[in-house]
Amino acid sequence: MRFGLCVRSALLAGLGACVIGAPAAADEGMWLFNGLPREALQSRYGFEPSAEWLERVQKSALQFDGASGSFVSRSGLVLTNHHVGSDQIHKLSTPERDLMRDGFVARSLAEEIPCADLVLRSLTRIEDVTADVKRAAEGLSGEEASAARRAAVSRIESAAREAGSQDASVVTLYHGARHHLYHYRRYTDVRLVFAPHSQVAFWGGDHANFGYPRFNLDMCLFRVYENGKPLEPEHHLRWSESGAADGDLILVAGHPWRTQRLLTVDHVRFVRDVDLPLSLFEAWRRESIWQQYVNRGSEERRIGMEALGGVQNRRKARAGVLAGLLDPSVMDALRTAEHRVRATATVVEDAADPWRQIGEACDRYRAFHARHVATGGNRPFRSALASIALDLVRLAEELPKPSGERLVEYRDTALDGLYVGLYSPAPIYPPFEIESIAAGLSYLAELFGAEDPLVTALLDGRSPRARAEQLVGVTKLADVAERRRLAEGGRAAIEASEDPLLRFVRAWDAEERRLRARFDREVGSVLDAAYARIAAARFELDGDRVYPDATGTLRFSFGPVRGYEESGRDVPPFTTYGGLYEQQALRAGDPAFALPAVWSERRDKLNPRTPLNFVCTADIIGGNSGSPALNRAGEVVGVVFDGNIQSLIWDMRYTDQQARAVCVDSRGIVEALRVIYDAPALVDELRGSR
Amino acid sequence: MRFGLCVRSALLAGLGACVIGAPAAADEGMWLFNGLPREALQSRYGFEPSAEWLERVQKSALQFDGASGSFVSRSGLVLTNHHVGSDQIHKLSTPERDLMRDGFVARSLAEEIPCADLVLRSLTRIEDVTADVKRAAEGLSGEEASAARRAAVSRIESAAREAGSQDASVVTLYHGARHHLYHYRRYTDVRLVFAPHSQVAFWGGDHANFGYPRFNLDMCLFRVYENGKPLEPEHHLRWSESGAADGDLILVAGHPWRTQRLLTVDHVRFVRDVDLPLSLFEAWRRESIWQQYVNRGSEERRIGMEALGGVQNRRKARAGVLAGLLDPSVMDALRTAEHRVRATATVVEDAADPWRQIGEACDRYRAFHARHVATGGNRPFRSALASIALDLVRLAEELPKPSGERLVEYRDTALDGLYVGLYSPAPIYPPFEIESIAAGLSYLAELFGAEDPLVTALLDGRSPRARAEQLVGVTKLADVAERRRLAEGGRAAIEASEDPLLRFVRAWDAEERRLRARFDREVGSVLDAAYARIAAARFELDGDRVYPDATGTLRFSFGPVRGYEESGRDVPPFTTYGGLYEQQALRAGDPAFALPAVWSERRDKLNPRTPLNFVCTADIIGGNSGSPALNRAGEVVGVVFDGNIQSLIWDMRYTDQQARAVCVDSRGIVEALRVIYDAPALVDELRGSR
Repeated sequence: MRFGLCVRSALLAGLGACVIGAPAAADEGMWLFNGLPREALQSRYGFEPSAEWLERVQKSALQFDGASGSFVSRSGLVLTNHHVGSDQIHKLSTPERDLMRDGFVARSLAEEIPCADLVLRSLTRIEDVTADVKRAAEGLSGEEASAARRAAVSRIESAAREAGSQDASVVTLYHGARHHLYHYRRYTDVRLVFAPHSQVAFWGGDHANFGYPRFNLDMCLFRVYENGKPLEPEHHLRWSESGAADGDLILVAGHPWRTQRLLTVDHVRFVRDVDLPLSLFEAWRRESIWQQYVNRGSEERRIGMEALGGVQNRRKARAGVLAGLLDPSVMDALRTAEHRVRATATVVEDAADPWRQIGEACDRYRAFHARHVATGGNRPFRSALASIALDLVRLAEELPKPSGERLVEYRDTALDGLYVGLYSPAPIYPPFEIESIAAGLSYLAELFGAEDPLVTALLDGRSPRARAEQLVGVTKLADVAERRRLAEGGRAAIEASEDPLLRFVRAWDAEERRLRARFDREVGSVLDAAYARIAAARFELDGDRVYPDATGTLRFSFGPVRGYEESGRDVPPFTTYGGLYEQQALRAGDPAFALPAVWSERRDKLNPRTPLNFVCTADIIGGNSGSPALNRAGEVVGVVFDGNIQSLIWDMRYTDQQARAVCVDSRGIVEALRVIYDAPALVDELRGSR
Repeated sequence: MRFGLCVRSALLAGLGACVIGAPAAADEGMWLFNGLPREALQSRYGFEPSAEWLERVQKSALQFDGASGSFVSRSGLVLTNHHVGSDQIHKLSTPERDLMRDGFVARSLAEEIPCADLVLRSLTRIEDVTADVKRAAEGLSGEEASAARRAAVSRIESAAREAGSQDASVVTLYHGARHHLYHYRRYTDVRLVFAPHSQVAFWGGDHANFGYPRFNLDMCLFRVYENGKPLEPEHHLRWSESGAADGDLILVAGHPWRTQRLLTVDHVRFVRDVDLPLSLFEAWRRESIWQQYVNRGSEERRIGMEALGGVQNRRKARAGVLAGLLDPSVMDALRTAEHRVRATATVVEDAADPWRQIGEACDRYRAFHARHVATGGNRPFRSALASIALDLVRLAEELPKPSGERLVEYRDTALDGLYVGLYSPAPIYPPFEIESIAAGLSYLAELFGAEDPLVTALLDGRSPRARAEQLVGVTKLADVAERRRLAEGGRAAIEASEDPLLRFVRAWDAEERRLRARFDREVGSVLDAAYARIAAARFELDGDRVYPDATGTLRFSFGPVRGYEESGRDVPPFTTYGGLYEQQALRAGDPAFALPAVWSERRDKLNPRTPLNFVCTADIIGGNSGSPALNRAGEVVGVVFDGNIQSLIWDMRYTDQQARAVCVDSRGIVEALRVIYDAPALVDELRGSR
């Protein structure tokens, strides 16, 4: 369950660099829809997507809560992963109706449950605005050039919205070499249609996560409505009857969040020795604290499991990348690739060698990296209330400024989404909030010492737990009306409020702004300029045989269904329901591998040969969770939900010897809907999509 | 399950300071058997132990694997905690016979199972050798004085052994103000007699740990043999028929490991801001790694649960101390206590203020603390094979030196115990060893960077996992005969060996020696001298109303059975079997709170009113686990097994508002032996001890 969850933390990562991709080898590549590797697809697979094929896939693909999904029926049915939808499924659950534990099937449209705060987007059009953005910064350099580009981007986005675009944002690609304006259609009335038991969606729990063979029904269904009726989308994907076979080409459309495929070696060393260890420390610590929380009882388990699963996922992903970077052969390959560009690039003649500049910027960053990362965004507290308070304080500060001068999270293009979260009626659990804030306060004290000025300001003379109890006990921010009053009242309302949580986040906000500015000045701007020069060198060398590093926007990747060898034995590409029950017998007594009663009762009705999961070599990463896996005809043969453990290093380097994307098979989905969940109408709707 | 487990890690802690206790308040104090607070016992409780009482208790008490136990029958039966005995119970288990999971009852002497590597000791005599040790260092100072004292201690110990003492060691008390020679009797043939199911011994698992009310049958029984027959010990403790009642005075004889009750405020700040955070980081990290290991399957669970339980226990204990130190009222109290001594002490007139010297030494320590702690002892790897390799390499280096000049772990008095471990036939599990060493190598890389000279030397060009697989795959140290050959062959054999694990630990040994020497020179010796001067100031102020900080040797503590108030409700002092089943019903479905089948089947036969656990105010700490809890008559009314969460700060400061020691009730033990475990002979033997 790698992708959706990964993204929420990647959003907050301290490393701002975004660099261009390597020349694509094998099936490597997260390609732009307006920049497909047509030659490679044709020569390697004899596949040439038509304009109609591409348009249907592009417009059926959905951005879903930092990850991916797609329209799979003419009545607005949306397919994604259970672990991508689980944030909503969790919010819709109550002590009496635990949709995570028990699953959910809407037997009619009336039973479909509206989500509190879910916004989906489909990409309708791409415009190249590179010339406009570049023109704005002509003749300028450094901070001035950056500011001019930001202002231009903001102008372009505003103009697009005024011209009728529902949602438009400029995506910076190839580290500034290209700027594309993406026009989106937004969907805000989204309802839950089907979720399997979480025990089956995430069967095997943390142990099986990132493993293979897998046996996970990691999927769920939502439906988009418009004007109170199911949406009839312009395009949707058709369901494959026959599924995929070993060796078949799989095509994937999804939203990979962030790759770091061409960091310089010095930058990778920084990630390996400084950034990943801190990030892992925070994850291990949170994992223990939330594991203890869910152990307290069944209601705590219901409330906390989503957060625990998220942090376990993050821990495993980061540990996998670190393990890769501690493998000397990986570092050697990165060094070789760097030498290749460096040897031919004219930029190295410069006095200011960009590779050296990046190394020096990383060295400077060491001095304040932990502080920058630990105070970044909501990271220290992971608390809904603290996040709300921070948004209120910052909105009051930022909204009076022109959009292009605001912190990036508060620019006009971000506000619609931000208000959805801010005014969400999703439940807030005070005991969990107390635990989260107390853990965050102790974390800061552990990192910086109890007498650090920020720590003492936040603690305000109390212990971490006593402070958290006071803040959560007194604040009124659990009340949506109060949030709305404060947001609408602006700075005056914030300053007049005696809510202790607002005062609390102001101390933190000031520190975070200071560190963010220092990062931009001492590190970020240097990395931007240096990577832009390296990008230029790579264009010189490789022309357009490169794809941009992932940016959380729609990408196209591909690769055949293919097993692999591990520890001397063959790992076949497909698993089946028969295998699920065999594994269950082997792990009898382990609660992570238990099955819900109905899955045992109806075992004999399931065809044991029905495929459940399969692997392929398509290049995917965090954010691709929920991406439709398509055949050449553009039909859904599965949904991407994970990578195996060997793929974790794909963040930094693609290999296909053992690394694989893992998908739920479309045939396994239909079989479960039919036999286990008594949902023939949904099966008909999916099949009717043909 | 605080105490026994705590000790194994406390042994390795980086802080060498050992300071004198505060003037005793309420029931505070871990008193020497030759320095009881007779006046307080008399005036507060009207209790005056006779010489016979004291001798019987002292000689019945046992040092048990870093924790405590006692003789409880005339045939050498030994009572301790299950979590203290579990290291042995775990070693005696196999995939076919899991004594941890299933428990064990020997139905006859013939069925009692000999332990592989367990040595118990009872304290037979104490001699004051202060004058001898002081004389040796007369006229010397600094390093010279330390060396002279070490040599004197070694001479005294050797002389005692030559004069027929089985085991004798000098204990340094009051930070060098007193030196006592402790004579021990050793018992090396120890057999397992009874263990309950671990599920009942540690019922509620990590969540219930350090909680109260508790419902844990955390006890087990061993028997000491001599010449193939049950030992008839000179003294043993009698079993109480009636148990204790609310308000009854409880007397405890055990081996508290280490308190830091009178660290200076600057030193406590160092512990809070530097030492505890690192220690917690290591614990959180290990907890996650071992949790993942036990999740792999039932055999991995059997192998890894003991280690996982240990690290969870350590994590919770350290987090509890840190939470206490982040409470401003605790720091205020420490500051007030320090001011009191400082205001009256003449030493503050000195140019070299010892409080300031300690603060400065802590500041110096910051520069290499992480490295010193992370390389100390077996800490980074927690691997049996790496520990064996280190002992072999160091024995070859140390044995040729005079005992007084060796590293402290290799002095003559330590060797008997060391060889028991080194030649132990206890099973070694290669997959677990690989996991442990790989995790340790990655830990060092995370702390110091992958290109650190120590890290690169240890990795030798491989990834952590590949290196661990190579070391464990090739080494022959799992074979006891090979260990013996290398140990007996001395330096020549070690140098001639091509065992990669020996080469591996040599790089590590060199670094650890370098850091240990630096610590002694820059920090330890300064702390020693400064704390000695503070100790003198305290003697001046408080005379003999002080007890020395715990040193892992036999101590006497006391306090009544007493409940407490928590979050506005009364926590009664006793729990019962009835309460156990009530709790189980409340936590139905949570595997940590499940009961073995026989406990459900025989529920109706157990008297629900039989007490199971109780709390008292006796001052105990890690190492007190397994201590007998006695009534005024010196009869066993229970066995100490834990402190509640509020007592975790007792490491640094005793309070009795809520903090309590937790004991298994003697009546609960007898009831379980009788009803659940069909062990009437053991019941008769315990009762016959009257």
